[in-house]
Amino acid sequence: MVNLNEMGCRAVAVKPQLQMLSTEEKNRALIACAKALVNHEEEIIRANGLDLEKAVANGMSEGLQDRLRLTEARIAAMAEGLEQVAELPDCLGEVLEEITRPNGMVISKVRVPIGVIGIIYEARPNVTADAFGLCFKTGNAVILKGGSDAIHSNEAIVKVLRETVEQLGIRPDVLQLITDTDRSTTVEFMKLKQYVDLLIPRGSARLIASVVENSTIPVIETGTGNCHVYVDKAADLEMAAKIILNAKTQRIGVCNACESLVIHEAVRERFLPILAKTLAPKSVELRGDQRTCEVLEDCVPATEADYGTEYLDYILSVKTVDSIEEAIAHINRYNTMHSECIVTEDAQAAEKFLREVDAACVYWNVSTRFTDGFEFGFGAEIGISTQKLHARGPMGLRELTSYKYQIRGNGQVRG
Amino acid sequence: MVNLNEMGCRAVAVKPQLQMLSTEEKNRALIACAKALVNHEEEIIRANGLDLEKAVANGMSEGLQDRLRLTEARIAAMAEGLEQVAELPDCLGEVLEEITRPNGMVISKVRVPIGVIGIIYEARPNVTADAFGLCFKTGNAVILKGGSDAIHSNEAIVKVLRETVEQLGIRPDVLQLITDTDRSTTVEFMKLKQYVDLLIPRGSARLIASVVENSTIPVIETGTGNCHVYVDKAADLEMAAKIILNAKTQRIGVCNACESLVIHEAVRERFLPILAKTLAPKSVELRGDQRTCEVLEDCVPATEADYGTEYLDYILSVKTVDSIEEAIAHINRYNTMHSECIVTEDAQAAEKFLREVDAACVYWNVSTRFTDGFEFGFGAEIGISTQKLHARGPMGLRELTSYKYQIRGNGQVRG
Repeated sequence: MVNLNEMGCRAVAVKPQLQMLSTEEKNRALIACAKALVNHEEEIIRANGLDLEKAVANGMSEGLQDRLRLTEARIAAMAEGLEQVAELPDCLGEVLEEITRPNGMVISKVRVPIGVIGIIYEARPNVTADAFGLCFKTGNAVILKGGSDAIHSNEAIVKVLRETVEQLGIRPDVLQLITDTDRSTTVEFMKLKQYVDLLIPRGSARLIASVVENSTIPVIETGTGNCHVYVDKAADLEMAAKIILNAKTQRIGVCNACESLVIHEAVRERFLPILAKTLAPKSVELRGDQRTCEVLEDCVPATEADYGTEYLDYILSVKTVDSIEEAIAHINRYNTMHSECIVTEDAQAAEKFLREVDAACVYWNVSTRFTDGFEFGFGAEIGISTQKLHARGPMGLRELTSYKYQIRGNGQVRG
Repeated sequence: MVNLNEMGCRAVAVKPQLQMLSTEEKNRALIACAKALVNHEEEIIRANGLDLEKAVANGMSEGLQDRLRLTEARIAAMAEGLEQVAELPDCLGEVLEEITRPNGMVISKVRVPIGVIGIIYEARPNVTADAFGLCFKTGNAVILKGGSDAIHSNEAIVKVLRETVEQLGIRPDVLQLITDTDRSTTVEFMKLKQYVDLLIPRGSARLIASVVENSTIPVIETGTGNCHVYVDKAADLEMAAKIILNAKTQRIGVCNACESLVIHEAVRERFLPILAKTLAPKSVELRGDQRTCEVLEDCVPATEADYGTEYLDYILSVKTVDSIEEAIAHINRYNTMHSECIVTEDAQAAEKFLREVDAACVYWNVSTRFTDGFEFGFGAEIGISTQKLHARGPMGLRELTSYKYQIRGNGQVRG
């Protein structure tokens, strides 16, 4: 049985040292960690083998096995991720605002670490190194709770990272892994409010819902994406087909993939055959309303549930609307506030959509697949936030920080 | 029995109209509401009388009765509050960042309303108008759950505000009040995640803890303040006494009042008599550790519990330390991340304190009493956030907003 309180205390205890590290010291440590991962790839792959053996014995699906599997190339990619984080600018200490008040006191709003961040995720061992890198660079201690199916892999990776920072004189408790795979431990972790400032669930909608339900720590929800492309009556139909092809099929299992097409009645009959032809090479199943099925004979009738489903598969739901207002209402009803797109040549319609659709990222004539820290130019990200507090959209380094007000004076008192 | 789902739906339904209101329309409505409150002061005071009658019958303390009582002057102050919010700049639509990517797409980070805000508070009817004003100006619909002891007062105020906006063609559901005083309704409200984007508890530590425990909606904690003043060995002792007098006694029941003195051993014997003399006219009870009691014979021995207590009274705990490190560790252990102060002439010590003390506002030679939206120049506030996500310190208009990314392009797809 892990003592979570003790882990919490240890995380809090490293905060002062972590906060005092210079940018150079942090970058040096990140690069050393990258090297160490590669140097220890054999051990890591051996540990991963234990997880895979158990996974096979338990009948884990091929897809999940693939997510769990570590190879030399994948460990190299993890290492490269740490090096990329080292290259990103250090935003800590940035003065966001400075105000001199009439009484002479000077108020500075300064960027600071959040403190201790907890991350709960599934059997994706690459998240272990990624999360450490982003949290470490932003001066945050991190406590990880990975999926139990990846426990040996995670232990091996964490051991390498902890040993590496320790060799550089940094307390290894900047990174801790909860090794107890008991569900009750996970729930207890979600209530470790005294020590943990932020909890980020990464994974399935079910995992996220469980964290939201149980956590007393502030949570940032990430990654559920029921994303729509709306083809307006004034759309360039070739462009629309190209964007949907990309948003739907460029990568199928990702949160910014398009799951639903909303189409204006005025272009329905002309556009659907173009779309069907464009998607044909990818064998995308279309599930549409009656008006869609009238045009496309292969179309499967859509149920209400289809419009609420994030397929992560070669399936696209289709809904016909008679106005942009109806399109916006439909999207605001079913979307997960992730990424939404309008295709139109009508600037007024576009601006209405950009304003009224409630999502982290709203696109005009651009594929939803760009919702990504690297594509936005922010660098590596810890996830895509789909809620409205603190951070929305790609969560990179800045989004893993908070601020404090520092007020300097010479004896001011309030009258 | 109130139908909370229906209230949630109604709040969501007003969002588009609310978001489309111009700054002028919003300001006009706020000023009309201010006038209407004054015009209806008789009704409001009559309703408040019903609450007060019941309060007296139930043996409510004088202090709480005072907080509940509305007078002409207090209604005028509520109205003035709304007028002040009308005068503040409208931050919605502000472009926080604009990035053109190599592929030509333009990413704009734009300030938007949060959506629907829930506020749970105690029997302080003035919060009703304040909360409405701030949320309305920032384009947020608001659902209020006030203390049951103030139910008639709140109903009267909300009726006036709703009627006034409705006369201006604005849907009254921009402001809704939960009139069911049943505890189970409050708990149900805390789980109305489908409709409510943010929940702000305003009130006692107990109320806040209950919201944190039960809510599935993101919460911002406000207002618990166990604030310290640390008198360093290099302090100007006259200044220190002046700051503590102000921070402790200028207003006793507020969250930014000083509750604890931390004193460096090197100045203990010299400073404590100065402090005792300075505080004597205000009859402040000192509760100190052994070294404090050695110097001051009136000193009451402090228990561990004293250091964790927000007195909101003429009581000050005192702790002696042998170093600034010990002072910082003590404060980081017992504080509520609200407002902390160091008094020193040593710039290096001050900067260490400003950096290492974990609080929303950290002061150097300034009274903690300045943690306040007006004192910071931000205008009216919904509360002082004591957590690190989204907003820290005074929460004014900007802190009641979120952002979205709007991405404009001409057919970009991801390669």
